[in-house]
Amino acid sequence: MYRTHHCGELRIENKDQRVKLSGWVQKIRNLGGMTFVDIRDRYGLSQLVFDLERNEVLSNSARELGREFVISVSGIVLERSNKNKNMPTGDIEILVDEIEILSKSEIPPFTIEDETDGGEELRMKYRYLDLRRNPIRRGLELRHKMSREFRNYLDNNNFVEAETPVLIKSTPEGARDFVVPSRMHAGEFYALPQSPQIFKQLFMVAGLDRYYQIVKCFRDEDFRADRQPEFTQIDCEMSFVDEDDVIKMLEGMAKHLFKTIKGIDFTYEFPRLTYEYAMNNYGSDKPDLRFDMKIHPLNDIVKNKGFKVFDDSEYVGGICVENAALYTRKQLDSLTDFVKTPQVGAKGLVYVKYNEDGTLKSSVDKFYSEEELKKWAEALNAKKGDLLLVVSGEMQKSLEILGKLRLEMGKQLGLMPKDKFVPLWVVDFPLLEWNEESKRFHAMHHPFTSPKKEDLNLLDKNPAKVRANAYDFVINGNEIGGGSIRIFDEKLQHKMFDLLGFTKEQAEAQFGFLMSAFKYGAPPHGGAAFGLDRWVALFNGSDSIRDVIAFPKNNAGRDIMNDAPALIDDKQLKELSLIVVK
Amino acid sequence: MYRTHHCGELRIENKDQRVKLSGWVQKIRNLGGMTFVDIRDRYGLSQLVFDLERNEVLSNSARELGREFVISVSGIVLERSNKNKNMPTGDIEILVDEIEILSKSEIPPFTIEDETDGGEELRMKYRYLDLRRNPIRRGLELRHKMSREFRNYLDNNNFVEAETPVLIKSTPEGARDFVVPSRMHAGEFYALPQSPQIFKQLFMVAGLDRYYQIVKCFRDEDFRADRQPEFTQIDCEMSFVDEDDVIKMLEGMAKHLFKTIKGIDFTYEFPRLTYEYAMNNYGSDKPDLRFDMKIHPLNDIVKNKGFKVFDDSEYVGGICVENAALYTRKQLDSLTDFVKTPQVGAKGLVYVKYNEDGTLKSSVDKFYSEEELKKWAEALNAKKGDLLLVVSGEMQKSLEILGKLRLEMGKQLGLMPKDKFVPLWVVDFPLLEWNEESKRFHAMHHPFTSPKKEDLNLLDKNPAKVRANAYDFVINGNEIGGGSIRIFDEKLQHKMFDLLGFTKEQAEAQFGFLMSAFKYGAPPHGGAAFGLDRWVALFNGSDSIRDVIAFPKNNAGRDIMNDAPALIDDKQLKELSLIVVK
Repeated sequence: MYRTHHCGELRIENKDQRVKLSGWVQKIRNLGGMTFVDIRDRYGLSQLVFDLERNEVLSNSARELGREFVISVSGIVLERSNKNKNMPTGDIEILVDEIEILSKSEIPPFTIEDETDGGEELRMKYRYLDLRRNPIRRGLELRHKMSREFRNYLDNNNFVEAETPVLIKSTPEGARDFVVPSRMHAGEFYALPQSPQIFKQLFMVAGLDRYYQIVKCFRDEDFRADRQPEFTQIDCEMSFVDEDDVIKMLEGMAKHLFKTIKGIDFTYEFPRLTYEYAMNNYGSDKPDLRFDMKIHPLNDIVKNKGFKVFDDSEYVGGICVENAALYTRKQLDSLTDFVKTPQVGAKGLVYVKYNEDGTLKSSVDKFYSEEELKKWAEALNAKKGDLLLVVSGEMQKSLEILGKLRLEMGKQLGLMPKDKFVPLWVVDFPLLEWNEESKRFHAMHHPFTSPKKEDLNLLDKNPAKVRANAYDFVINGNEIGGGSIRIFDEKLQHKMFDLLGFTKEQAEAQFGFLMSAFKYGAPPHGGAAFGLDRWVALFNGSDSIRDVIAFPKNNAGRDIMNDAPALIDDKQLKELSLIVVK
Repeated sequence: MYRTHHCGELRIENKDQRVKLSGWVQKIRNLGGMTFVDIRDRYGLSQLVFDLERNEVLSNSARELGREFVISVSGIVLERSNKNKNMPTGDIEILVDEIEILSKSEIPPFTIEDETDGGEELRMKYRYLDLRRNPIRRGLELRHKMSREFRNYLDNNNFVEAETPVLIKSTPEGARDFVVPSRMHAGEFYALPQSPQIFKQLFMVAGLDRYYQIVKCFRDEDFRADRQPEFTQIDCEMSFVDEDDVIKMLEGMAKHLFKTIKGIDFTYEFPRLTYEYAMNNYGSDKPDLRFDMKIHPLNDIVKNKGFKVFDDSEYVGGICVENAALYTRKQLDSLTDFVKTPQVGAKGLVYVKYNEDGTLKSSVDKFYSEEELKKWAEALNAKKGDLLLVVSGEMQKSLEILGKLRLEMGKQLGLMPKDKFVPLWVVDFPLLEWNEESKRFHAMHHPFTSPKKEDLNLLDKNPAKVRANAYDFVINGNEIGGGSIRIFDEKLQHKMFDLLGFTKEQAEAQFGFLMSAFKYGAPPHGGAAFGLDRWVALFNGSDSIRDVIAFPKNNAGRDIMNDAPALIDDKQLKELSLIVVK
């Protein structure tokens, strides 16, 4: 037996008990004849004490311990004379009379402390050491706790957790699949699922009624910052539901998570913004509403005053940044630089300072009088001391630029505290979006999303105007999840494939089994999928999902700890009937 | 809104309520002016009634419904005159005044009933229809319930569920890996995990203390009956434990499952048989102890009596089959045929009938007197009316043959009822087994299994004799799980790799990061993995794990519903820098 207690367990009530602890050496201090060793495990820290006078051999062996050694000690629990109120075990210490070194440790490549000196690359290479650090370990524990609460809620609402296959068929729609060569069927491949979409719909056809799964999904993308080739979804689907039913059920889940994990009790319905409203007011389909700072159009006020840039623009709009009139020239220049970066893509930025003394000063004073600028200020609900930022150009693009600028201002002014949460839904997404490259419509969500009944008549006339029964769940500007009411009618599904440029043969080859399933009595159904990694990161206050994934890959899709991907044996390639050509 | 209640929910208390139900048409009966329709969903069946006299149009539309149509109906709950005590909703029926056909159905390719006319191939092709059948749906529901209870138990015992990566590095030890070509690193491959073994050990090095995961694993094997290329494990690992600690914890889990799922309260410790005892007495390392019928050696009694077959054999042993002396010549011949099949592999079978009248009749009467046969009977604890079956040859092989014969007799005599459960542990497995083909030792469990301390001195002298700290969990002759206490010492791990024929370079290339992890303070640790599919099948009374997997593959590893694996685009292959050569 290696232990009677964990390292975080002993209290003053255990005084005089004989105990055994096992764990890692966190710290060693020699004070005169006394040696103090902090022993650590997942549950906490305890102070061990060795007395040179009582037991010289033992005390000397304690002095030879190193950080991260794994030891097992027996001894008596004593009351500390010098109590540490910051430690749950701070009232006691263990006077050790037996010690066994279970495993030695070389000096770790970085310090195992909450604040470490290790860079990301080094910490990833030795991830098993990084995981010893409290902040990272707590992230994993939070992830577990959250998964549990997701399951509790869904279990209690009659959802059945059911597993879908990982080795499936490749489908060209959507992102790129990872594929798995079949050895037994030479030249053929399985694909790893980007989501269990079709299977969960088949579960509904099968009458499972309510399904969920916390499941790994895969996407072979050119890795962007903070994307992982494998990621985890909370995947749900329900039968005999409309959009409102699904939103209510899943909002209940979100509230359950907020309550059980963060102790926040949301007593109101989360706002549901239409896609159009979100775009027009926040320049984003995932607005961060921790602060307001809405976008306002200025076209009517600013045009035809001789400023050609505005006159030639489809759209002019701005935001009002409260109490930022004192921004310096340098700060304003750097904002202009910000909007001109390729990621934002503006041509320029117009500002108006509404000074405390009531005067107005702008970068376009040449074209606009103070009187006119006052109208801008009114349109943007600005008051003295505020800063107005104005952008012009093509409407959609300008709104997106203002959306990014809005977020930048929120960041600069500290309007986005990590412990404030503003959840909301975005609804009424367009069904389709035109893709210039492929010269065809793409599904905004996926090809199984149903159009709104009232827009069905536009499907032929004006497909771009058709709205979908689709919804996204957004917290603090993060798209945490999304879903839709699905098509459950074979003919409508065919029509969708048609609109998306599939030939009948392609649709049949790719999704024939789904459409054949619809022939045997399919119920109305819909659902959603949530990004577990993102949600945990958000609740954990982490900037990167890597912090809450046990063994993440780097931005090149490589596991630098075990060096995957890697070359494989020629024999293995031969068995798979494959040749590599570089 | 599609429903106010489920189809299994209404009771006499709901009498006179207006309700709305949605579901599938199970059955339609026309009785005079009345039409009765059974509507079905996951939760149950309700009887709908349509009255021709009250509403002719409605009644006629009900008559045009077909099986498996999806409908939504509104109506009033009535008390049935003719109650059906076999149905939870049998006291009531719904007098329908509104019906909507949500989705029609073609005639299904097989009947959606508990006993169906569909063959396995057809049912797999239309798995979404097969899943509508109660026995299959119940299997999935049981799987969910069991997963929940596994989690409950482990959560309550401080285990952290943590996810390990699916895209990992290929390792040649063990079965064949499925691999995933990397597009971004041309010519390199990820592998899909056969188990999260190394990652869970790293979790222990990381100090996670107790880990579990219900996780998909993958094995590219030549598919045998009832094997799946992807399968699900309950994977556990603990730190600061010895074999007894792990067995106790996981036995607790098994008992929790038996109690919560099967209502069986095991109040005793599960037996722990040594590998040697199990082999010698039951001819198997996963003995089915629903019946006893032990194997007994007969060498001392049967040798040197002139029967050359026995005299030349390393081993002679037998089993006593109670009350089977009346087996006919034909039955005995077919037993002989059975042991001679390639799967069993015996050269022949000797029988002795211990007749009710006390006489003994054998197939070797030429060599053995009745007096001598009586000694056989005594050695096998036989009584009048029993049948003795005797096999000879090389010892290990003979024991295995007797083991298989024992199971066959158990089956023939109905000694293996599906609702009786006899769980046990097999312990003290050999660490290594000699492989004639590769002329080297292979790890019986895996290369990370620790040898027993008391056998360490045999590692150099007689590796085949070294026992491992390894254990299997067996229920009714099924190996449900297995595990071991792991090596946590870098030097011993190196020695193991050495014994297994790895060069230093190979060991470093494959497992370098594990051995490097052991340099920074590794705790003693051990764990186990359980086969979820097998365990659910066992509790479900299913003969095949396919019954409890939502979308299984066939024995050729093919998903015949969506036809995977399949060819992929040349473009995709090109992106992966691969050429297929047949």
